[in-house]
Parts: sequence; structure tokens; C-alpha cells
Amino acid sequence: MVYNKIMNDEQLTNLRHSAAHLLAKAVKELWPGAHNAIGPAIENGFYQDFDMGDHKISEEDFPKIEAKMREILPTWQKFSFNEVTLAEAKKLFKDNKYKVEMATEFAKEGKKLMTNDPGDFLDLCKMGHVENPSKELIHFKLLSVAGAYWRGSEKNKMLTRIYGTCWPSQKELDSYLHQLEEAKKRDHRKLGKDLGLFVFSDLVGAGLPLLTPKGATIRRILERFIVDEELKRGYSHVYTPPLAKVDLYRTSGHYPYYKETMYPSMKIDEDELILRPMTCPHHFMLYKSEPRSYRDLPIRYAEISPQFRYEKSGELTGLMRVRTFMLSDAHIITQPENAKSEIRKVLDLIDYVNKSLGLTRGRDYRYRLSLGDRNEEIKYQKDDAAWDKAEAILRQVLDEVKAPYFEAPNEAAFYGPKIDVQIKNVNGKEDTAFTVQYDFVMPKRFKLTYIDQSGKEVQPVVVHRASLGAFERTIAFLIEKYAGAFPLWLAPVQVEVIPIAERHNKAALEAVERLKTVDIRAEADTRNEPMQAKVRNHALQKVPYLAIIGDQELKNQTLAIRTRGGKDLKGLTFEDFLAKLKEEIEAKLPT
Amino acid sequence: MVYNKIMNDEQLTNLRHSAAHLLAKAVKELWPGAHNAIGPAIENGFYQDFDMGDHKISEEDFPKIEAKMREILPTWQKFSFNEVTLAEAKKLFKDNKYKVEMATEFAKEGKKLMTNDPGDFLDLCKMGHVENPSKELIHFKLLSVAGAYWRGSEKNKMLTRIYGTCWPSQKELDSYLHQLEEAKKRDHRKLGKDLGLFVFSDLVGAGLPLLTPKGATIRRILERFIVDEELKRGYSHVYTPPLAKVDLYRTSGHYPYYKETMYPSMKIDEDELILRPMTCPHHFMLYKSEPRSYRDLPIRYAEISPQFRYEKSGELTGLMRVRTFMLSDAHIITQPENAKSEIRKVLDLIDYVNKSLGLTRGRDYRYRLSLGDRNEEIKYQKDDAAWDKAEAILRQVLDEVKAPYFEAPNEAAFYGPKIDVQIKNVNGKEDTAFTVQYDFVMPKRFKLTYIDQSGKEVQPVVVHRASLGAFERTIAFLIEKYAGAFPLWLAPVQVEVIPIAERHNKAALEAVERLKTVDIRAEADTRNEPMQAKVRNHALQKVPYLAIIGDQELKNQTLAIRTRGGKDLKGLTFEDFLAKLKEEIEAKLPT
Repeated sequence: MVYNKIMNDEQLTNLRHSAAHLLAKAVKELWPGAHNAIGPAIENGFYQDFDMGDHKISEEDFPKIEAKMREILPTWQKFSFNEVTLAEAKKLFKDNKYKVEMATEFAKEGKKLMTNDPGDFLDLCKMGHVENPSKELIHFKLLSVAGAYWRGSEKNKMLTRIYGTCWPSQKELDSYLHQLEEAKKRDHRKLGKDLGLFVFSDLVGAGLPLLTPKGATIRRILERFIVDEELKRGYSHVYTPPLAKVDLYRTSGHYPYYKETMYPSMKIDEDELILRPMTCPHHFMLYKSEPRSYRDLPIRYAEISPQFRYEKSGELTGLMRVRTFMLSDAHIITQPENAKSEIRKVLDLIDYVNKSLGLTRGRDYRYRLSLGDRNEEIKYQKDDAAWDKAEAILRQVLDEVKAPYFEAPNEAAFYGPKIDVQIKNVNGKEDTAFTVQYDFVMPKRFKLTYIDQSGKEVQPVVVHRASLGAFERTIAFLIEKYAGAFPLWLAPVQVEVIPIAERHNKAALEAVERLKTVDIRAEADTRNEPMQAKVRNHALQKVPYLAIIGDQELKNQTLAIRTRGGKDLKGLTFEDFLAKLKEEIEAKLPT
Repeated sequence: MVYNKIMNDEQLTNLRHSAAHLLAKAVKELWPGAHNAIGPAIENGFYQDFDMGDHKISEEDFPKIEAKMREILPTWQKFSFNEVTLAEAKKLFKDNKYKVEMATEFAKEGKKLMTNDPGDFLDLCKMGHVENPSKELIHFKLLSVAGAYWRGSEKNKMLTRIYGTCWPSQKELDSYLHQLEEAKKRDHRKLGKDLGLFVFSDLVGAGLPLLTPKGATIRRILERFIVDEELKRGYSHVYTPPLAKVDLYRTSGHYPYYKETMYPSMKIDEDELILRPMTCPHHFMLYKSEPRSYRDLPIRYAEISPQFRYEKSGELTGLMRVRTFMLSDAHIITQPENAKSEIRKVLDLIDYVNKSLGLTRGRDYRYRLSLGDRNEEIKYQKDDAAWDKAEAILRQVLDEVKAPYFEAPNEAAFYGPKIDVQIKNVNGKEDTAFTVQYDFVMPKRFKLTYIDQSGKEVQPVVVHRASLGAFERTIAFLIEKYAGAFPLWLAPVQVEVIPIAERHNKAALEAVERLKTVDIRAEADTRNEPMQAKVRNHALQKVPYLAIIGDQELKNQTLAIRTRGGKDLKGLTFEDFLAKLKEEIEAKLPT
């Protein structure tokens, strides 16, 4: 959550883009055969791509490169610019095929070709630079190095990409680096491994996580929590198959829109089957399995739904970006006049869920009203009046519930506008966690109907929504949010019972049995290790409560309770300890 | 459960095979162009295949055919037999290409060619006939007609198959026909539709059931029941992805054995992925994700695991045979010396589960010890000593727990012997519902190891088991067992609250809310219909309890309770009713 006080977004972009030039110059001086390709500003920093020839850059080279950047910097007083013709550009950059390729493309598109030079480093770029590089480009740091295909295509050469960051002040740079450090510690991939929550296997395949007993416990708790809550709120949970004929997705219209992110189809007898990228058409088939009347509506089909998306291997990230996930999905089929109140109820459910996960509205999350563009007829189903009406309804609901929101043009689904729940992650970056979509297209495509009060067959509206999102992503988010120290209700192991000496093992095992009968997830550590080592070990494993049993406790019929944070709660009777646990679980509060 | 008192199995087979001849003769007399192909005895009856030329036989023809059979029967005094050469057979049956094809094949295999003739009907068959057809073939009945490819291959001509049954006495025939009627009423496909439990959709695809809210409720209850029970018994539930690289199944050795029943593979980037036909290798990957010691064993990985099998469309049957299902699966990885006690625990769990489903050991189910054949080296992994040992262990366990079982040679898995739990369905037919397998092959293939007490790296044994089977099949079985009248703990709707007049609607809705807060699945029927009609309707829907509210009940603060079976429990207070419900749910007893 780093906000720049002085510079606006454009100024920050210019700063970072200029820093990328400086990096390019330094690398070219150090390795004269290197060629720089593109070097844009990105969120919180910049990168610069290089064709390094045979040389391989590693993070160990960073001090040397940074030193060279600092050495060059005083000579960079001002960028001077110059418009050139394509012929001139080709001549100027004749050694750099990447620059030539871009210059040729820019020229074809009718764009001006501009060279810039802050002093002894002629370059060609899309422009946007600081006024006074030597004074402004002070607070930078190189961060990492990775491979990246030229223009993002696997058919092209793999270039070397160096990431860096640059800020207007040392304080902001330090604060950002500190935040990065924190995020690294909280990285769900690292914690997932340290705490034994999930693993990957080369033999199983990329993007296909295996949840260990501990990770699976978190998922099961979340699943039962949301299913029970939704049942209470009038949802009907169903199970539909994770695959279907491709025709189903041709009918829905998903196939042309999402084909690229779907798995390949499979031929089974006469059927061409495909793993589903979403659940909606399955729920529509359930709806259509019998005639419906206004008395049956709204029907709220919910499902913990397995879904499959083809993600490029380079884009897979722990549990955040996977190739198969379970979505807490639902489709509300309603009379149009009730759509607004249904959406209101969904927002209420989402607020309840977020609160249960420890998120505060306005602080940790806000809403985005994602709108269609009436001119984008390929991207959005054409029906201006319907779009206007749907967008107005969503806007009204957001206003009515006083939701903090902003509007985003051109972010809708192809079948209607939506409300996205934007949650801030530990990097301060906003991600869409859940969405609520107003759909006036699918009912028409699937000929969904009901008999209204007057006996007429009419069309309902569909509200698509995800309440707890994809479990994999939600778990990744929670790991990072709590740095692995889950609130008691979600902790895979809630209590570790630790006997001081071997003679206390029996009592420890009995305590575990007693806790289990009242649905507390407890374990005993009866290894022959010093008590302090066991306490430290389980505190590091983020077990919320450590219950120690020794002679004293046996005599007093108590448990010596310590928290994972090191707090000593002293001796508690079993009943008092249990009451404390139950209260905390019930409240779902973070500890 | 029809057992013949007089005839043994061979005699019954002869009886029914002879009846098939009689059917062939009758059809050929009625439709002179018809050719009979094969006509074997099957369980409880027989069938006869015909090439009917252009004529289409339907069940409406059955009375006519049966009459013709009775007309012919007195002339059939005795089958006379005659051995013929292939040349003679070809001549005798020159009009019937099916007989010629079979005769040619039999001759090639060195089999004797025998004709038989009970009087004016020369036929060629595998033999096995009654002594005195005119006296014995009395108690028959034709049952159904279906299409069947010649020799079961889709490449051949579709023939007409007529099914019939034949018994030694009228009493046995009547009893069998009654049983068939009952089974038809209990057919889970019919009840599934009548009670709104599941549907199929042409657009989704064959063999891919969609569970409605009611059907999904049953599955959810079963799932939570088994997961909670397994957790209590020391299983670790996990979630692993429903697909993996084909290489995973090459490593396990499943791929060559099960390729034919697997889905086609899918190419994703560099990976060749395939939907999983079983969970074991996924669990092995979890096991291998860290080093293990004897202290960690046994590890009991359990999963409610989605699995995929390619079944031919002709073999798909409601929820019984599907193309995707959820298996209550587990793999116990244990020190070899503990394998026996682990298998004992599994049998105990299965007994507990079966009892909860209302099944009695010995009456409703028994065990089959499925053994390998040391000579079948392709079907079973070669290792005589290991097979001997494993089979001995399973036999010992079955003896120790005094399990009713029988031994079946040549029914093992390729990686070891198994115990199959054989449950009788409503037709009295035994099906394998769950299995417990002893596996000494996979640990080697996957290089599963642990460090034993002496610090040596050694190999564990794997016990594969399914406790509640595939949910789809188990639900189908339960529907048929209970004819849709599920025990209270499984009933999708447990209580239907029925207001007598509109002025009682409010009280009815309040009663529902009150029941829901104590986790009773209740609904109110506030339609403007006569109370009696609503009672009838919900009793037909097999709702266990109907709670009626009228003036009387409002005054007395009671509910008038009736059962779906028509029993009148009179007025009960809410507390008394609830206590009754809770007790019955707890006991899991059928009502």
C-alpha cells in the first residue's frame, strides 16, 4: 500500500521508463555485444529486455550494473528528442534488429518515430521521460532477472528481462522494498511449502496442485462454511458433471469467446466432450428439465464446481493461477422485477463472507462496476436498451447499499454488466475476487422461460455470482493475508498437545481424544524431544494453541496453554480452554 | 431371491436353453423369412437373436409368439442329436449365414458339430437340453425385445433379441415375475425421475448425470457422513486434481491395463494430460512429496475423488453405469507387518457404513476373496511368493472377523488380491459395491519407501479401498433398496409442513424456519390446494413426515404429524416432534 504523495501516475511512469533507459545504457557498456529491446514502466517499477548474446546475466551481476548506472547518471542532464524517418532509424539502429523491427512497425502504423538521447545513448522508444534524469533517477534498485520471449511469442528468441524499481524518494523506495520483503515472507508458495499445505508433482503436471491433509482441511472448512451459509440463504446446491458436449458451449456462446482458454475436446463415441470452463449452461439444463412457474422463482442453483482453464505454463502461479479449480458458483434465475433484490442479497452474502474471512469493506475491498461498450459489437452482445437497463440496476443496488465502488468501462462479460469485488492483496494490488453478473443474453440463447401470473410464457433474468471465489485462489489469498497464521476456525491443526516427558504421553493422547470428540482438530507431539523445541516447532507451524502437560498440570487437572505468538495463558481447566476455543471459532476472529 | 428347490444350475441352464429353441421355432413359423442366430440361457432366463429381415418385432407380438410356442410344444417329445461334418452343416443350414459362420468357427477350433431336433426343427448349437421338452418347457414367459449386434460388434448387422424366462414350476415363474414387477417399480431411473433426484441432458451428454437439489442433498449427506467417519478413524482427507499426465499412468502401469476404458488424452503445452480413471498414483505423489519414517505410518489418504471411465453408450444405465463418478476412495500406506490390522479396520469401517445404510452382514452382503492366477502372467504382475503371502493375509483377516465369504479365482487386480464386498440388489443379484485391495506392486513401481526402526530404507504395502463406493452407484442402490422412501437421515426433505387453510400459512412458514434452525430439512406447501391432496402428494414424494397445521393445532400449539406410510401420530408439540426426529436421525434407522 505505497502511495506516492508528490508524483502522479504519469510522472511515476516517466520516472520508471527513464530508469529503464539508464539500465539499458549500463548493460550495454558492461557487455558491449548486448542489444536492448523494449523497456517499459510497469506497476511499481520497470523492466528492460536484452538480447545478451551468449552471456548470461544473474542477480549476482546486479551490484556491478547498479554501480555502472550510478556512474553514468551524472552525465544524463536532459533527454533530447529528434523525429527521424524510417530510413534514418534503420540506419541509426542498424545493429539492433529489435529496434529496426519496431521502427518498421511504428512507421507502418503511421506513428512518429522519435529518438531520444540523455547524453551519449541514442535510443528509440514510445516516449515519456523525466525532465532531469541526473537529479530524479536516484532512488532505484534492480530486483530480479527472468527469461521473456521477444514480443511474448514462444516462436521468437528468449531474451533476458531485468526488473527494477524506481521511486521519487529514498523513503518510498525503502518502504516499497520492505513491502516486497514482507510479501516474499508471506508468499503463499513459500508458506504453502513451509506449512505443508499443498504440493506440485512433475508427474501429475503443471498447474495441478495436490492439497495435503492440512491444505485439504482448510478447503473442506471453507466449503462447508459456504455451502451451509448458502443453504440457509435459500440456495439449492446441486452437482453437475465437470464436462459436457462442446455443443453446450456452442449454444451458450462461450465456445467462440473462450475457446483459447478451454482444454482440447475429447471424442467419446459420437460425442465431442470438453472440460467445462464454467458452470452456467449446466445449471440452465437443470432449469430446463421441467416447466417452471413464477411460483418456483427465484431458483438459486449453487455448486462447488470443478472448472478447467487452459493457462499457459509461464502464467501458472502456485494456487493463484492453476489449470483446474473449484469455484463457489451460483446462478440465480429470477423474474426480472426481482433481479435487483436478488443482487442486493448477493452483495449481502459477499459482505458476510468477506467479514468472516477478516476483510473490512472499504479498507480491504471495494466494488467495481464493469460496464460494456456499446460500440464493441464483437465483444458484447448487441442490445443497447438491455445494457442500459442492466447497468442502471447494478448502479442502483450499489448506491442503495452504500457500497464503495468505481466504474470501469469495457470490463463487462459478453452477456451483460457485472459488479466485481476488488480485494487488495498483501502487495496492495487489487484483484477481482468474486463477481456478480447480470445476464440478459443466456436466457434467450437457452430459451429459458417461466409462466408468469397471467399465464404467459416469459423470459427470466440470470444472475451469475461467485461467493467465495475459486477455493484455490481464496486459500492462496488467506495464506498471504494471515502469513500462514490462520484464524482458529480455519487452522488445519487447532491445538497441539505437548507432553513434557514420556510419562505424560498417555495424558496428552487422552487430551487429544477428548478435544476430538468435541470437534477440535488436535494432535499430540509425543516425540522424544525437549518440550521447548516442540513448542517452538509448532509455533513456527502456526498452530494457534499449544497445550502443555507435565506433572503440575496432571496434578491440577489443567493444561498449560501458550499461543503461537508466545503468549502464556497459564493453566486452564479443560472446560475453560474448550469454552475459549468454541467462542473464538464461533466468532471467526483472527488471532 | 428366487431359489429353485429341485433343479440345479446346470438343469436350469438346460431348461432355459431349450426354451430358446422353442422360441426360435415359433418365430420362424410365424415369420418364415426369419433366421435365428444364438440363443443362450442367461441368469434367470434366456434370449434368442433373430435376423428378422424387414419385419420389426415388438412386445405386442408376444401373445402371438407365446401362443405359437404352446401350440408347437406337445410335438416336442425329445431332442435327437446327430454329429455332422462341416460340409454337412453348411448344407443343412445353407439359408442361415449365422449358423454357417458359427459352424465354420467351431470346426476351425476342432469342436464337434452337433445338430439337434426335438421334432421338425433341426438346429445347430452348443448343446445342453431338457430330457422331455413337452413336459418341462411349460412355465415360460417372454419379457422384452431389444436390438443387439451380431457377435456384439457395431460393425455387424443389428439383430432382434427377444428375452424370456422359464422355470420348473408356475409358482417359481409367478414369483420371479412378481419380483421383476417390484424391481421395475423400484428402478432407480424411474424413481429418480418421479422423485426429482437427477436428470440427464442431451446437450450435456450421455452418462453424465445432473443431480437436482434433492439428489444433491442425498449426496452431500452421504459425503459428509463418510468424510467425518473416516476422519474420526484416522484417515487424512486430501484433494488431488482429477487429471494428470499420461506418464503418471504409464508409471503406475494402469495405462496398458485400462487404456480402453480411459478418456482420450489432451495436449496442453508440452503435457499430455488425461482424466483419471483412479486416484492411487495421485496419492502416491503426495506420499513421495517428503521423506517418510515408520513413525509417520500408516498414512491413510482418503478422497472424495472424481473419476472418469469411458463406458460404451450402450452400457450406460442411469446412475449405475456412468462416465464420471465420485468415489469414496482411500489408500493406506503401511508397514507390511501392519497391513493385516489395517485391513481389519477397513472391514470394520465397511460393516459400520453398511449398517448405517440399513444392510445386514450375511443377509444383504457378503465378501468375495478375489484371487490371482499364477499362470496368467499378462493379467497379473508375476511374483508367486508375494501373491501367496498377500492372499493368505486377506484370508486370515476374513477368518478372524468371521466374515461370510467365498473365494473367486482370477478376479484380482493386476497388482494384488482383493476382498470385494458383494451386495445383493433388489433383483437378488450380487454386485461388487466396495473393494479392499492388497497391493505389493505399486510401492515398487513408484519407489515408495520409508525409514524403518533400524534406519533402513524399506518398502511399504498399499491397501486400496472404497468405503462408500461411487456415490452415483450407492445412491442408485439406495433408491432401489428403499423404493425412494429414504431413512430420515438421508431424506432430501424430512418434513413437509402443510397448512390446512390460507390463514395457517404464516404458522406453517414459521414452523419451517424453526425446524431449519435446528438443521431439519423442512418445507411448507402453501399452495391453494386441499389439505388432503397436499398430504397425498408429499406422501407420494416419500417425505417421511407431514406436519399439518390448522385451527386445532394453532390453539394447542401442536403439529398434527402423519407419516408418508399413512400412520397418524396425532398432535405433537414442537419439542416432542423434534426429539423424535433427532432420535431417528441419530439412529439412521429405516422408517
